[in-house]
Amino acid sequence: MAKPYVIGIDMGGTNTAFGIVDARGNVIASDSIKTAKHSKIEDYIDELHEAITRLIENNDAVGKINGIGIGAPNGNYYTGKIEGAPNLPWPSPIPLAEMITEKFGIPCLVTNDANAAGVGEMTYGAARGMKDFIMITLGTGVGSGIVVNGQMVYGNDGFAGELGHVIMKRSNGRMCGCGRTGCLEAYCSATGVARTAREFLEIRKEDSKLRALDVASITSKDVYDAAIAGDQIAKEIFDYTGTILGEALADFTAFSAPEAFVIFGGLAKSGDLIMKPVQEAFNKNVLPLWRGKIKIIFSEMKEADAAILGASALGWEIKD
Amino acid sequence: MAKPYVIGIDMGGTNTAFGIVDARGNVIASDSIKTAKHSKIEDYIDELHEAITRLIENNDAVGKINGIGIGAPNGNYYTGKIEGAPNLPWPSPIPLAEMITEKFGIPCLVTNDANAAGVGEMTYGAARGMKDFIMITLGTGVGSGIVVNGQMVYGNDGFAGELGHVIMKRSNGRMCGCGRTGCLEAYCSATGVARTAREFLEIRKEDSKLRALDVASITSKDVYDAAIAGDQIAKEIFDYTGTILGEALADFTAFSAPEAFVIFGGLAKSGDLIMKPVQEAFNKNVLPLWRGKIKIIFSEMKEADAAILGASALGWEIKD
Repeated sequence: MAKPYVIGIDMGGTNTAFGIVDARGNVIASDSIKTAKHSKIEDYIDELHEAITRLIENNDAVGKINGIGIGAPNGNYYTGKIEGAPNLPWPSPIPLAEMITEKFGIPCLVTNDANAAGVGEMTYGAARGMKDFIMITLGTGVGSGIVVNGQMVYGNDGFAGELGHVIMKRSNGRMCGCGRTGCLEAYCSATGVARTAREFLEIRKEDSKLRALDVASITSKDVYDAAIAGDQIAKEIFDYTGTILGEALADFTAFSAPEAFVIFGGLAKSGDLIMKPVQEAFNKNVLPLWRGKIKIIFSEMKEADAAILGASALGWEIKD
Repeated sequence: MAKPYVIGIDMGGTNTAFGIVDARGNVIASDSIKTAKHSKIEDYIDELHEAITRLIENNDAVGKINGIGIGAPNGNYYTGKIEGAPNLPWPSPIPLAEMITEKFGIPCLVTNDANAAGVGEMTYGAARGMKDFIMITLGTGVGSGIVVNGQMVYGNDGFAGELGHVIMKRSNGRMCGCGRTGCLEAYCSATGVARTAREFLEIRKEDSKLRALDVASITSKDVYDAAIAGDQIAKEIFDYTGTILGEALADFTAFSAPEAFVIFGGLAKSGDLIMKPVQEAFNKNVLPLWRGKIKIIFSEMKEADAAILGASALGWEIKD
């Protein structure tokens, strides 16, 4: 029998958030520590162990934890290691699952952030009951978690589902953080939206509320605020972003014919501003046999809890 | 216990080929009938039943058939139906699996040609033992069969794996048979190669062996022969084709991180002429983490038997 709780750990470059989660996806209690405070990974694990043990004890959960799931940058589900994460201070690879399992005496699984979001959505969110869907996370980057036949797609090496790095512009594409050009992520992430804003403001001559801001530090939130206030250029920035995302989703459909795409992350909060052009470009670009048949929906995970919930869902995969 | 043989049926617009196959992938006996001779599907099924029954009786296989697998244009694995196949004379949908199962008293599964090739490759060919690979068939069109976690990806509706219709040119793309423009299939199929030849001969001024031919009826085989004989333009046609295919495979890798791509079909016989530019474009375009780590190999299925073998492999999926 599965025990009644799982632990979810969301490991970011700055903070590590964690929580105790029940089978219905309620976060019973949560806390966080700084990630990069310790120069040795062992000291980080020690502090994490102390903090989580305290949380378990204070919430009457001793002996009731079924498993620990971790969402971590470049986390590999198969090896349990973090391999080459640029925003962590420790030497790579980090055998995280092994270290945590040993320290806590509780089985642990690791995956990357976007795959964790996908598992979370399938376990507690908008994709409950779906056997085939694709999670798209629109944050600083563009991530993805692909579920086929009810299983997360990890691929041969554990790194599958890097849809943010599919090439959308084969000539004159924007430089991407991965070292190549034209990636989806360079256009449809929050940073991509800010880049589009800077490009549009330079090329276009019309007035815009965005011109009152310091162009170099415009954020996707600024663009959202301007668009909501009726600013034409800001709306066109969302059209441009949504069109590229819709074209990408049309191509992804040819791969796994999902029941739905589930959109998560900061940009998803832009609602129809982003969804309308996504839908239009999707319907225009998808193979006719799928036109009007694939759902594109927003995540049902509360953003504050989503990362912990997503990671925690891995804790249910552990069977005795 | 599984019975010792399966029947594979390869249903094409012109001919329907079928054979008795053993567990090692030997085609024990095979034959074929014309597909489009009958204006009623029932008469076609009757003739097929007679011909296959004769084959079974003549090869001492009565009562020894584990199942029947059919590869058919637009065949849907989930429903067992052919839905909207443009090159068949009967009204759509055709409940093929049901009709065959009833007529023969033997369980039957249906899928499309490229998925059948994928199942065949996994069962008898170059992908034996692989849990994650992508089959790419380069014929009149470009088809694909995607295997993830050891399972064929059929998607939510049974039509997944249409990688020939991923968009490779977003502006000024070639018209594709699907009604859209810029699809992989419009460039990397045998007909795509012939189109490239016509384009190159019109734009370029250099001499070429291909100029001796009737430009309107040039085939990919003509281009192959010219390239083998050292013709520069013919070689560049293969470079162009292979580069687009390599770019596509790089994007596909971001999806499912396969162990290998298995290339099948007429163009695969061009060997290094096509493989060299594919490999180069793949390595140039794939995310650095996969560079040099994904195999791109040719199918190991004999072309004469491949379609029957691929279809037949479905017959082993049937359990009592």
